[in-house]
Amino acid sequence: MKKGCPFGSHRVIEPKGSLPQSALKIDNTMELYSNEILIKVQTLNVDSASFTQIKDACNNDKGRISEMIKKIVEERGKLQNPVTGSGGMLIGTVEAIGPDLAHLDLKVGDRIATLVSLSLTPLKIDRIKNINVETDQVDIEGKAIIFESGIYAVLPEDIPDRLALAVLDVAGAPAQVERLVKKGMTVGIIGGGGKSGVLCAYQARKNAGETGKVIVVEYSKENARRIEELGLADEVIVADATKPIEVYERVMALTKGKLCDVVINNVNVESTEMSSILITKDRGIVYFFSMATSFTRAALGAEGVGKDITMIIGNGYARGHAELSLNILREAPEIRELFENLYQ
Amino acid sequence: MKKGCPFGSHRVIEPKGSLPQSALKIDNTMELYSNEILIKVQTLNVDSASFTQIKDACNNDKGRISEMIKKIVEERGKLQNPVTGSGGMLIGTVEAIGPDLAHLDLKVGDRIATLVSLSLTPLKIDRIKNINVETDQVDIEGKAIIFESGIYAVLPEDIPDRLALAVLDVAGAPAQVERLVKKGMTVGIIGGGGKSGVLCAYQARKNAGETGKVIVVEYSKENARRIEELGLADEVIVADATKPIEVYERVMALTKGKLCDVVINNVNVESTEMSSILITKDRGIVYFFSMATSFTRAALGAEGVGKDITMIIGNGYARGHAELSLNILREAPEIRELFENLYQ
Repeated sequence: MKKGCPFGSHRVIEPKGSLPQSALKIDNTMELYSNEILIKVQTLNVDSASFTQIKDACNNDKGRISEMIKKIVEERGKLQNPVTGSGGMLIGTVEAIGPDLAHLDLKVGDRIATLVSLSLTPLKIDRIKNINVETDQVDIEGKAIIFESGIYAVLPEDIPDRLALAVLDVAGAPAQVERLVKKGMTVGIIGGGGKSGVLCAYQARKNAGETGKVIVVEYSKENARRIEELGLADEVIVADATKPIEVYERVMALTKGKLCDVVINNVNVESTEMSSILITKDRGIVYFFSMATSFTRAALGAEGVGKDITMIIGNGYARGHAELSLNILREAPEIRELFENLYQ
Repeated sequence: MKKGCPFGSHRVIEPKGSLPQSALKIDNTMELYSNEILIKVQTLNVDSASFTQIKDACNNDKGRISEMIKKIVEERGKLQNPVTGSGGMLIGTVEAIGPDLAHLDLKVGDRIATLVSLSLTPLKIDRIKNINVETDQVDIEGKAIIFESGIYAVLPEDIPDRLALAVLDVAGAPAQVERLVKKGMTVGIIGGGGKSGVLCAYQARKNAGETGKVIVVEYSKENARRIEELGLADEVIVADATKPIEVYERVMALTKGKLCDVVINNVNVESTEMSSILITKDRGIVYFFSMATSFTRAALGAEGVGKDITMIIGNGYARGHAELSLNILREAPEIRELFENLYQ
């Protein structure tokens, strides 16, 4: 049995030398390499941007959507939307584990969710069983491969799949907060009322403790009210994060000029880099979890205002992130209830 | 005398609420606010991307270039190229210091270089004296403003202007290396043969010491040879950083599988994120100084290969960066000589 590259380059057909995510086409032959895991797929959770593009292109016709998805997978060997470049994730059952991965804490029959994108996952669809256009989920008969470097989470028995997936989707964020926030710190969370923001606020509060301070900046009054009701922040500011001077002045007032030790940016609109940068104290840290972040706007922006701060590109993976995030649902029933209402 | 916002928002004409860098138009009336510095400008160092666009649009005709530059500044109050969005920097003499900035270690008559971009600097051009189309420099009679948050460097007496500017342009890079690299570390520098790379390699070598290891990855054979001749690296790999698997395999071999503690990315082409990520060890740090870095490619890329690493957005400003970088020229005559040959 052959051993593959840990990053999956052995399955790249075109262009040679690239990695699966950026490849145009990968090999989805379901014959296992010695360091791969074979999954019997149950459901594809298609990335929202991708599914929206497909729905629009197919006029919401399920038959046409089904054909388009099958065609993408046939052409590319993976479900990576050629227009948006995005993928999504999947859940299924472990069918086989290559001998070089026998040491993993995993067994055949385990139900798992992939935590690496469908945009790099070899996939074969035998049959599309159902398409749910509300939740962007596609139930299939089919198989997929996880590479040695791939990450996954065994689905918990005590949390329903949909809830678990909603949390796993953003598990990196609270895990990074756990690493960055220390007792007594002042933490700013921009976009605190969404899925990721709520988990980050919870973890920040937990780490900063009684002597710390969590300030949430939210655009939506409803999300802000939610944070207040859950008691997840010391202060909630309803403001537009694309207006940096206003955000800066309000945080200056709230912190009596001290600003924040750590700022977490979770928003999903553009141009919120300067709000994040201005409210960070000298030698503080900004953690950009938002995929709408512009590298150059952040880099040049901080330099342009003479802010000597560390700006981190959000890494969706941190060891232990799945367990930490699912545990938040277990520790905080009010957050579990919120997620159940929003995401089930 | 009125006091302005430290970030210069008081001079933003359009759109209200934004900061000078992103503003369409700023106020270039040369009446000082109490926390501003007035500069008598000598030379504009126009950003390369900007000047190339202007030259092309004007068919290299100096008269037309002059008119275009004056027009941009009249319309916008600053020299920010409306097509590229970039600026550059300037050198001049301090003409006045607002009373609220009297504490600065600066006096009227000091020769300074601005370290914040022309894309946010209020500028008034009275006359264009000379245009150098080779060096992208424009000598003028005119004035400019630095805000309280702005950064600048007093030009050294022992280093000629052009040399000092070439170094100051990338001063943030070696300064960040100084903070990140500790004794005994293995440091990877991708794009090690250019201006920034050479200074980073020097500083990395200095900090890592005898027990450390500096590995440079360079695309150009000539730049690679330069690094070898200067003795700035323990190993030099000539490779294409857009081919991550090849770079990874070579660094794996060189480090006997240990990979790098810190990786610095200085290249100026796209798609080198994965090379940087793959050669970083678990819990290591990648520092992206390259303005060609894509936030999403880095964020999703690291997650996609299960790399638990910290990725930092290069901040061009670090306290003391100007002095640290100019001192490299003083400490290392061979580097000064190289810069003199390349940039004078």
